[in-house]
Amino acid sequence: MNVVIADRPAPGGCTVGIAGFGTVGQAVARILASGAHPGVQLTHVCNRNVARKRVDWAGGEVVWTDSFQALIDSPVDVIVELIGGQDPARRWIEQALAAGKSVVTANKQVIAGSGPALLREARRQGRHLLFEAAVAGGIPILRGLRDGVAGDRLRRIQGILNGTCNYILTRMECAGLSFDEALSEARRLGYAEADPSADVDGYDARAKLAILVGVGLGRVVDVEDIPAEPITPVAAIDFIYARRLGCVIRQVARAELTPDAGGLHAAVRPALVPEASALARVGGSRNIVVVDGEFGGETAFSGFGAGGAPTAVAVVSDLMAIARRPAPAPDGWLPASGEPCPVIRAFEAPHYIRFMINDRPGIIASLAQVFSHHGINVDAVLQEPGWPKTELPFVMTLESCSSVSVAAALADAAGFDFHVRPPLWLPMRVDRSNGTAGSSPA
Amino acid sequence: MNVVIADRPAPGGCTVGIAGFGTVGQAVARILASGAHPGVQLTHVCNRNVARKRVDWAGGEVVWTDSFQALIDSPVDVIVELIGGQDPARRWIEQALAAGKSVVTANKQVIAGSGPALLREARRQGRHLLFEAAVAGGIPILRGLRDGVAGDRLRRIQGILNGTCNYILTRMECAGLSFDEALSEARRLGYAEADPSADVDGYDARAKLAILVGVGLGRVVDVEDIPAEPITPVAAIDFIYARRLGCVIRQVARAELTPDAGGLHAAVRPALVPEASALARVGGSRNIVVVDGEFGGETAFSGFGAGGAPTAVAVVSDLMAIARRPAPAPDGWLPASGEPCPVIRAFEAPHYIRFMINDRPGIIASLAQVFSHHGINVDAVLQEPGWPKTELPFVMTLESCSSVSVAAALADAAGFDFHVRPPLWLPMRVDRSNGTAGSSPA
Repeated sequence: MNVVIADRPAPGGCTVGIAGFGTVGQAVARILASGAHPGVQLTHVCNRNVARKRVDWAGGEVVWTDSFQALIDSPVDVIVELIGGQDPARRWIEQALAAGKSVVTANKQVIAGSGPALLREARRQGRHLLFEAAVAGGIPILRGLRDGVAGDRLRRIQGILNGTCNYILTRMECAGLSFDEALSEARRLGYAEADPSADVDGYDARAKLAILVGVGLGRVVDVEDIPAEPITPVAAIDFIYARRLGCVIRQVARAELTPDAGGLHAAVRPALVPEASALARVGGSRNIVVVDGEFGGETAFSGFGAGGAPTAVAVVSDLMAIARRPAPAPDGWLPASGEPCPVIRAFEAPHYIRFMINDRPGIIASLAQVFSHHGINVDAVLQEPGWPKTELPFVMTLESCSSVSVAAALADAAGFDFHVRPPLWLPMRVDRSNGTAGSSPA
Repeated sequence: MNVVIADRPAPGGCTVGIAGFGTVGQAVARILASGAHPGVQLTHVCNRNVARKRVDWAGGEVVWTDSFQALIDSPVDVIVELIGGQDPARRWIEQALAAGKSVVTANKQVIAGSGPALLREARRQGRHLLFEAAVAGGIPILRGLRDGVAGDRLRRIQGILNGTCNYILTRMECAGLSFDEALSEARRLGYAEADPSADVDGYDARAKLAILVGVGLGRVVDVEDIPAEPITPVAAIDFIYARRLGCVIRQVARAELTPDAGGLHAAVRPALVPEASALARVGGSRNIVVVDGEFGGETAFSGFGAGGAPTAVAVVSDLMAIARRPAPAPDGWLPASGEPCPVIRAFEAPHYIRFMINDRPGIIASLAQVFSHHGINVDAVLQEPGWPKTELPFVMTLESCSSVSVAAALADAAGFDFHVRPPLWLPMRVDRSNGTAGSSPA
């Protein structure tokens, strides 16, 4: 039995310094200033040109500084890193841990890239390194994985982890917008950045998936090993075909252990998911994570994946965990050691291929022959009326088969002269247990 | 800073005795026997006539006993109470805590009724009393409320907490079954008990709601103070009208603090919820809990609310929390003291009233006059064709108004001679932020 000796007068309680006083930092300060959590006290704020950041409502005792070293040298118990990016954030986190501080961060890049090493350092120091806010903002998914379903043995994690992509795709779906129109709208409303490539190319979701794999599946992955495919080639017509197939299109981040748990599939890419599935039902900029366990089946966590206030709630929840338990539990939060687990890129699934062609007789026969040659069964051929013959979209769906075969078949088919644009190839995540909250009990 | 001194050789680890070796108890033993969690070791099983319960797969070192006292006298660290019901379960939990054991239970009745007193005793003993499995089975909602959204200040908790009712209502909705047909089907499939009254009358969900109010809103409530209304009067025709209103019917458990946080609304009753809402989207025997916080907005947790394996995962997750931290944190899990908070029964909402009448001219005028007399605005009158005039269902929807006014108006209207059956009165939970995962970001 452990014995806890407290040298603080009251149970719990900690002092906090925030590094980076942008949207999230200010939202954290507002929650702490609200009096909702008297045990957690903001004492320091560090930001470049801090004078212009200074606010009255944070409390008269807060020390405002331009110098991170001043934070390190201060007596604060916890440093909240909210500057983002790789450098100097990673270095600052190391310095804070080395100085005996606990650290809370929302920095997905640093944790996805250096989480295990930083956690080892935190453990060595007997300090916390918590990062609930790094994945899916206000959804307490890391704690849910680590504690909530700790009794299960997880096999698969799927999620919609990027609110910008989900906003764009659901607007294309619901309002019939083109990708560019939906992106412009997202920018106008502040849901997309001027350079949206980290979002639409899947890199943002990939970093979050790497963290989920660590916490939920207990595997360290090199984030760059996870394939990420952009949503940019998805066109308005694809939502029409998806609907005919009872599906919608989402940017799906997905990781799954092989049946023997020895290997790991992981990828971020646009995919068709059934309209009735949990993944389809998350609209706008929301996020969802659906975990599948050997014993407990599917459990879903959804909510606001981004935004200052939800992300700040995640940061403050981490602070309260530290206030309640200043010394971390002896086991780690992520696998704190071990070689990165190789990511298997090939996968089995039904597939959706949308061609854009200059129509002439014999095209379907030619394509069917190529697929047949690679041992792939064509499931259906769909063609919506009302499109010009010179730029005609049509869809072939393929029965479940290896992505390697599909890639080989499409490479062969690329030689045909009827293509107006390269085909769009999406997996169909339609397996029965695929995030589906169906109406029949399992 | 706290200092942790461990007197165990390995970090974590605990021995476990199970009291009650039914479906959940066996599922817990199976997970522990799977080797997924080497730190948690099953050493004792207690059940009446234990000889007939004995299984080989639980491990050769397990002690099987008929006597709870033998469990108390054994060196197990944790007793898992899975016998259910009030007595002797409550007494056994008290005895276990008094003997210095930690306790994990799935017993919603005992926790809803005596949680605060038992938690005080656990705290006095420096032991855990955990009960994640008591609410929403495999969904880690108590941990989500306590730790995951700890940084927020919660205002409202809504949920679908009874899988039997949700199965019946979704089958009535999707297959057009009558209540009795859906109940028979649920019985046949094992989703309803021979006597389903605790489920369909709302008492099961009420006990769970009382626990959620304690953990999430920090208020002790007397479970009997929470109004519970049965789903039995809901008829197939109501799903047709609900659909015309863009809604479905669910058994909704709902608790909300008043704006000044001084009072508490809480109830379990059938209600109309928008088809697009998170509550509507949970089909079959699944559960969902949607929490609404002052800072973070809505977060939803969904999954399998019952069943041996998901419930067992919740039990084992609690065991792992104890293995990781044998001494509980100094703060409580529920408000461990304080007078029960009175429950406000009156509420404001739009309302759905379905009448069943023997038709003659002037009925709508008579009813409209009664509502008008009570200051209630009628929003719409709906009448589906194809019903006999002698038993004609029609619906009036009322603009948002106090339930007290509606009750008074319906009491007045009860005197009219055209009623074939008493009207069905349901609140419409259609406010914008009501568990809705809409397509526009908030």
